Amino acid sequence: MGSGSILFQEIHQQPEVVEKFAEQGQGPVKALATHMRDTGIRQVVVAARGTSDNAARYAQYLLGANNRLPVMLTTPSLFSLYQKPPLFAPDTLVLGISQSGQSPDIVSVLAEARRQGRTTAAITNFVDSPLAEQADHVVGLGVGEERSIAATKTYTGQLYAVGLLSAHLANDSDGIAMLATAPELMRQTLSMNGDVEKLAERYRYVRNCVVVGRGFNYSTAFEIALKIKELTYTLAEPYSSADFLHGPVSLIEPAFPVIVVAPKGLLMPELKPFVRQLREMDAELLCVSNDPTLLELGRTQFPFPSVPEWLSPLLAIVPGQLFALYLAAARDIDPDRPRGLVKVTETL
Amino acid sequence: MGSGSILFQEIHQQPEVVEKFAEQGQGPVKALATHMRDTGIRQVVVAARGTSDNAARYAQYLLGANNRLPVMLTTPSLFSLYQKPPLFAPDTLVLGISQSGQSPDIVSVLAEARRQGRTTAAITNFVDSPLAEQADHVVGLGVGEERSIAATKTYTGQLYAVGLLSAHLANDSDGIAMLATAPELMRQTLSMNGDVEKLAERYRYVRNCVVVGRGFNYSTAFEIALKIKELTYTLAEPYSSADFLHGPVSLIEPAFPVIVVAPKGLLMPELKPFVRQLREMDAELLCVSNDPTLLELGRTQFPFPSVPEWLSPLLAIVPGQLFALYLAAARDIDPDRPRGLVKVTETL
Repeated sequence: MGSGSILFQEIHQQPEVVEKFAEQGQGPVKALATHMRDTGIRQVVVAARGTSDNAARYAQYLLGANNRLPVMLTTPSLFSLYQKPPLFAPDTLVLGISQSGQSPDIVSVLAEARRQGRTTAAITNFVDSPLAEQADHVVGLGVGEERSIAATKTYTGQLYAVGLLSAHLANDSDGIAMLATAPELMRQTLSMNGDVEKLAERYRYVRNCVVVGRGFNYSTAFEIALKIKELTYTLAEPYSSADFLHGPVSLIEPAFPVIVVAPKGLLMPELKPFVRQLREMDAELLCVSNDPTLLELGRTQFPFPSVPEWLSPLLAIVPGQLFALYLAAARDIDPDRPRGLVKVTETL
Repeated sequence: MGSGSILFQEIHQQPEVVEKFAEQGQGPVKALATHMRDTGIRQVVVAARGTSDNAARYAQYLLGANNRLPVMLTTPSLFSLYQKPPLFAPDTLVLGISQSGQSPDIVSVLAEARRQGRTTAAITNFVDSPLAEQADHVVGLGVGEERSIAATKTYTGQLYAVGLLSAHLANDSDGIAMLATAPELMRQTLSMNGDVEKLAERYRYVRNCVVVGRGFNYSTAFEIALKIKELTYTLAEPYSSADFLHGPVSLIEPAFPVIVVAPKGLLMPELKPFVRQLREMDAELLCVSNDPTLLELGRTQFPFPSVPEWLSPLLAIVPGQLFALYLAAARDIDPDRPRGLVKVTETL
């Protein structure tokens, strides 16, 4: 059921989809970056939901760290339901991220930003969507029709667009060159497909788990948790390792499954003791990492290739997508038809 | 075990604690509001973790809706671990919220804001804490020593401080008068103590649940979920009703417990169909509301007094605190000693 699914196909299409976007998306992304620099944008407000909101989390860290831009994830209900939108300072870019470009609450944020005279931009699969209509700059992902309800190639496409935007904003040709290597690295990561299929069996009867990530991979933790919830009906809660220690760590009992996303990078000195602490509490650890010593701490290991930390979310999500796919298959759930979901969710 | 606990005492101290703050806190809050108006603050960045982060969520909606201020919850790791902090625009207030005022990552955000020449403020129980030292404006909550590890009176104190700040910013004497009625309304809400004790028994064997709220009570959903996790080792995931429909709704199966925070107000036309949808899916509904028709949809009902929606988080959290307390008691867990937690969590 897993490997015959549309979801399987879309997960495995990601390298080519991202490769195509790396060619076709440069123009619009560069234009947006130039406009942001020329007009002195000092902060970015992002409106998004679901998977797109997780791409927004990546933007929050990447544009924050590499471009020193404060990025705020906004509260759509203030715009749609309360109709009391905050007033954005003139040096604010308001960015909508949405697969369909159709959810009314997300569209309402951009429409209001435009009324306030702010620059608006959209990252979406549909360049003629209502969201795109409200955007001064439209970055079309061109990932092709995403038929599976659980978004995968849209997510990595969105991450890639955010990565390109950050690199162009910084005139960082090394970053752009590094991004060009991502499709091949994603292919390498996907080669673990068969391993993940086997590893997923062990978790057939898991009822709940937590997914921990921090910094650039806070986004990865949220997106892995969302895929697990959507596809396998397991309660999977995402956490930053720091927030986790401020309360939810009391959940941990022997055998409690914790997925930790911990790539090489600046956070390793923080994450390794955290993982060791969980091990001492006899948690069942599933480690997503490209650091061999960190991986060794996991009962289950999801390795991926070495990359600079800022680029790691593009790869680290892949084992999570595969894990959710094969966990659904292990439970005889059709990954293409999660109960209760439709492709385009319209919320107010 | 429940009613003999320190936690029980602190939950029941909340009306008097808030009453005291309503007298003593006016001065510092008013000074901060005046400074914000005089210096033309156009946006607020909040640094907080755990329970304090949930108070920050309230600030995001309240200052957004009633003062039109964009409020951003920041990412402390960019300041502490990555040491690549975003650059704040000059019209930004950077606010730290912390019970102890000691967590190094939160302190680092204010220290950096000060280096950048921005206005800083702190809401904390300890006016001589490292966080307070970095703040131009210190709002001391004066809630007295909070001995229980799970924060309760600190949370409602923080909400009250945010409410006062919003009212003073808007020169809203009606709002200030309304806030003055809150202690008595909290007392009325606490009178359901015995009912909640009985109702909690039913959930003795719940392993996981979700807590849904939106708008002003998005904060309440997060804080109820945190109390349940800390005190009862139940996986409780908070959601906005809109985000919930963008994926996690697929979790729902018959008897799955969903706590819905749905007070009277602008969101009711959105929340009532949402609750009905969950009922049709045979979810076990626990409704926290002051709307009789909404309460009737719940298998379990947690009523609280009528108030304007913006003030409802101060009351709606109370049944959640009591529920977490008595669920812990039903499980023979000592609510004053949740495993794995200490009172002051220091994260980097």
